[in-house]
Amino acid sequence: SFRTSSVQMAKSKFEYVRNFETDDTCLRNCYIVVRLDGRNFHKFAETHDFAKPNDDRALGLMTRSARSVMEELDDIVIAYGQSDEFSFVFKRSSNWFKRRASKLMTHVASQFSSSYVFFWKDHFADRPLLYPPGFDGRVVLYPSNQNLRDYLSWRQADCHINNLYNTVFWRLVQKGGLSTVQAEDRLKGTLAADKNEILFSEFDINYNNEPLVHRKGTALVWEKADETTTKQVRVLNEEKEVTVTKSRKRVSAHHCDLIGSRSGRSTPTS
Amino acid sequence: SFRTSSVQMAKSKFEYVRNFETDDTCLRNCYIVVRLDGRNFHKFAETHDFAKPNDDRALGLMTRSARSVMEELDDIVIAYGQSDEFSFVFKRSSNWFKRRASKLMTHVASQFSSSYVFFWKDHFADRPLLYPPGFDGRVVLYPSNQNLRDYLSWRQADCHINNLYNTVFWRLVQKGGLSTVQAEDRLKGTLAADKNEILFSEFDINYNNEPLVHRKGTALVWEKADETTTKQVRVLNEEKEVTVTKSRKRVSAHHCDLIGSRSGRSTPTS
Amino acid sequence: SFRTSSVQMAKSKFEYVRNFETDDTCLRNCYIVVRLDGRNFHKFAETHDFAKPNDDRALGLMTRSARSVMEELDDIVIAYGQSDEFSFVFKRSSNWFKRRASKLMTHVASQFSSSYVFFWKDHFADRPLLYPPGFDGRVVLYPSNQNLRDYLSWRQADCHINNLYNTVFWRLVQKGGLSTVQAEDRLKGTLAADKNEILFSEFDINYNNEPLVHRKGTALVWEKADETTTKQVRVLNEEKEVTVTKSRKRVSAHHCDLIGSRSGRSTPTS
Amino acid sequence: SFRTSSVQMAKSKFEYVRNFETDDTCLRNCYIVVRLDGRNFHKFAETHDFAKPNDDRALGLMTRSARSVMEELDDIVIAYGQSDEFSFVFKRSSNWFKRRASKLMTHVASQFSSSYVFFWKDHFADRPLLYPPGFDGRVVLYPSNQNLRDYLSWRQADCHINNLYNTVFWRLVQKGGLSTVQAEDRLKGTLAADKNEILFSEFDINYNNEPLVHRKGTALVWEKADETTTKQVRVLNEEKEVTVTKSRKRVSAHHCDLIGSRSGRSTPTS
Repeated sequence: SFRTSSVQMAKSKFEYVRNFETDDTCLRNCYIVVRLDGRNFHKFAETHDFAKPNDDRALGLMTRSARSVMEELDDIVIAYGQSDEFSFVFKRSSNWFKRRASKLMTHVASQFSSSYVFFWKDHFADRPLLYPPGFDGRVVLYPSNQNLRDYLSWRQADCHINNLYNTVFWRLVQKGGLSTVQAEDRLKGTLAADKNEILFSEFDINYNNEPLVHRKGTALVWEKADETTTKQVRVLNEEKEVTVTKSRKRVSAHHCDLIGSRSGRSTPTS
Repeated sequence: SFRTSSVQMAKSKFEYVRNFETDDTCLRNCYIVVRLDGRNFHKFAETHDFAKPNDDRALGLMTRSARSVMEELDDIVIAYGQSDEFSFVFKRSSNWFKRRASKLMTHVASQFSSSYVFFWKDHFADRPLLYPPGFDGRVVLYPSNQNLRDYLSWRQADCHINNLYNTVFWRLVQKGGLSTVQAEDRLKGTLAADKNEILFSEFDINYNNEPLVHRKGTALVWEKADETTTKQVRVLNEEKEVTVTKSRKRVSAHHCDLIGSRSGRSTPTS
Repeated sequence: SFRTSSVQMAKSKFEYVRNFETDDTCLRNCYIVVRLDGRNFHKFAETHDFAKPNDDRALGLMTRSARSVMEELDDIVIAYGQSDEFSFVFKRSSNWFKRRASKLMTHVASQFSSSYVFFWKDHFADRPLLYPPGFDGRVVLYPSNQNLRDYLSWRQADCHINNLYNTVFWRLVQKGGLSTVQAEDRLKGTLAADKNEILFSEFDINYNNEPLVHRKGTALVWEKADETTTKQVRVLNEEKEVTVTKSRKRVSAHHCDLIGSRSGRSTPTS
Repeated sequence: SFRTSSVQMAKSKFEYVRNFETDDTCLRNCYIVVRLDGRNFHKFAETHDFAKPNDDRALGLMTRSARSVMEELDDIVIAYGQSDEFSFVFKRSSNWFKRRASKLMTHVASQFSSSYVFFWKDHFADRPLLYPPGFDGRVVLYPSNQNLRDYLSWRQADCHINNLYNTVFWRLVQKGGLSTVQAEDRLKGTLAADKNEILFSEFDINYNNEPLVHRKGTALVWEKADETTTKQVRVLNEEKEVTVTKSRKRVSAHHCDLIGSRSGRSTPTS
């Protein structure tokens, strides 16, 4: 076993191994995006009987976990999620963890994952969590505002395309009596307009009336809100009630087009 | 809102943002080490009343979570943990996730963190988890066996040094009646031999008899074990009992010197 | 020795070593700056009797070599040089060599160095080159126009500070009769205003009248120029002289403030 | 223009741009290989009438330039070249330029290129250099001795394959009266044995008797050599001649199998 007296010396002798660590500082003045994706979530959804095409409990839990990330970690200005993925955008000037990519992405992945299990029971009251889920992450840098907007638009377009497909697909299976194979065949090669038409003519569904949270995903941003409270104070020996208003920042959720459709430059038109 | 028919086109227009992702493939033929560290665990330990200097429930939970990582993710050949940190060593030839550093470290961080919350109740039966903890991670590459051995020796020497210090420190506080400030003063400048002496002469403790798990930390490795089960089989219309022995790999825990003290080359001598 | 018939097989067996190459693609939508610096140019200048504080032959050769780089390699929009350094700015959208950092910087370093030797005799007619000089390079990325402007301003401010210092220093030595040690002492702690005053009161030199190439360095940009040539053509059996004007791009040199001093925002003014 | 007094301040204001530089330190305890390749050397060879299939003046100049790199830069233990490429191997423990990849590869590329032009006239006495050539470079890391050996074997196998092909191809064209297209057709699909047979039966050439420098390329290594000189010394008022032997390291060239063909394990044999 270690002879105590020689350990400190031994340790300093081994410490050279620290020099094998590499610097992975993110280029300055770029937006840092960390995106998480569920690992094997197809199986995870099956095992926990997620509703199809969208499970609102699961979406709520994703959002709750993302909120936990934003509240715990510094400098995230916007987060956007859909399905089993969530993207977190750090401000350009962030110096959190000295912009070290590994620290940023593992912290986000870790905080999100522990929150997902922690808050599970609040969203799936009657359904126990059967095993701990995993998420993988990556870091991507965007040098300009336009690049960042296009990134968010890309993820939101992905949300839309998948949700439209899944909405029709599961209607065909759940109400239309088709097998999953038949539904897949039916949708092969169809355009968005075709899918809208199937929904409308066969199931009397106007896709544009589907819930925004499913069609647009969820964006979390910091908002200032006035919080008014009443306090009892004693003035000149008299007990008085005083209202106090404080401005507080808090995370709020939105289900809308991330990039205004007005400007036109880089956004899907309505 | 999105006009469905234009979304696919819009998406492909935004897809250029994928090209901003960078390749972070780990150099081949190197050991890949992912190390996790608890975030603000000093506060976390306080909040959850961890015993000092070592909380066996907390150590057990760390080990349980590390085991979950090893069982879920491929190619980890050894894991070593102490205090609130755990290192995972992927084999040199691993091609898991194409050796992409970001995937490797976020997966480990995520699986570990969700497991920590998931298995909490098995280790802290009477104590609820108050908030989801975070862990950060990093990736380090080691080109040679010797480098890897030295890395493990470095972490284990760190375990030893911290544990010896903490053992004396908390004795002085808990049994010796010193304040934490006084204990710190008392230990300032002391060598390992001095600390051993304090333990022995003042508290009748032989440090070498302290639990191995505290002095050496925990190493997890894969071991083959024969598993023998009995099966009922029907042979020639007769019901028979047959014993079947299968060789199975499973993760087993060890609390010992990671690097044999014999070879001498790079290891603390006893 | 290799048996011919087995070489192809052998080669494919070794080819796995290619997988050890790493991808060093530069982040898109950023300016790519390659800066070269002379290696041991203090000694090189001594050996080749460069005039002090500035050798116009050497500055001319630097500029000639930089021009060769711009003409040979694609997508360089501006180059800026002073003393023994030169910076090359590739346009944000450049896809030259797939934006691979190693290719970009080695090409620039190579082309510059071979040009330096190749064109030496045009600038140092009477002085043979005694040994082949070396330059080292690096790549830096700048995400915004402002960052790039600040980079160029940084190098130009460096030019100014060094040139003012060197101008006074060598006056004191060459005309003032001070040793180099005495001149250094004399200038210790002086501000720019003090140096200007020494030049003016002791040597009757107004620093602002010193050559622009020394005070501002050299910027190379592409400019369109009309080139007019005359051609003989035969029209209706008659020989005629026709003037043909073509617009051609060519590299032109400027010695001016790179960034307008007024707003700090606009493009180079002369 | 800059007001002198404000330049220092301005410079410090711009200096933040240094933080955009990234750390590209090479992983420790790995061999660092820098490989250079001629840029557009097909055209360069045409323009300067290189002999085919091998121009010994050009090969000699490549080797001379590589020797210059080895002598100028530290820690290169072996260099291997063939055709228009050269690889330089830095020792595992090298800390030259703090192992910064960009510095290493640009220095090599620069020194090689300036040397190529500088020494041109020694190898192409009668032929002027018409324009400055370019070389690009890259850095690759190899963690083990075996990986490095396989890298060198890979390059040497490449040398062999190309040289055998080129030897036959140019024989067919130069002596066999075939056009280059016909020669290409003739060789399509042939194995090494076929090519050897063509050489032997049609041109009476035993490929194994071709010059080693063409078949094996050129390896440069450091060798210790005793250098004996005579000095006149004065002893007891008498003039005496003394022989002095010093051990000096110098670069020597070899044309042999880099890796013994027997075991594939040992060091270069001659």
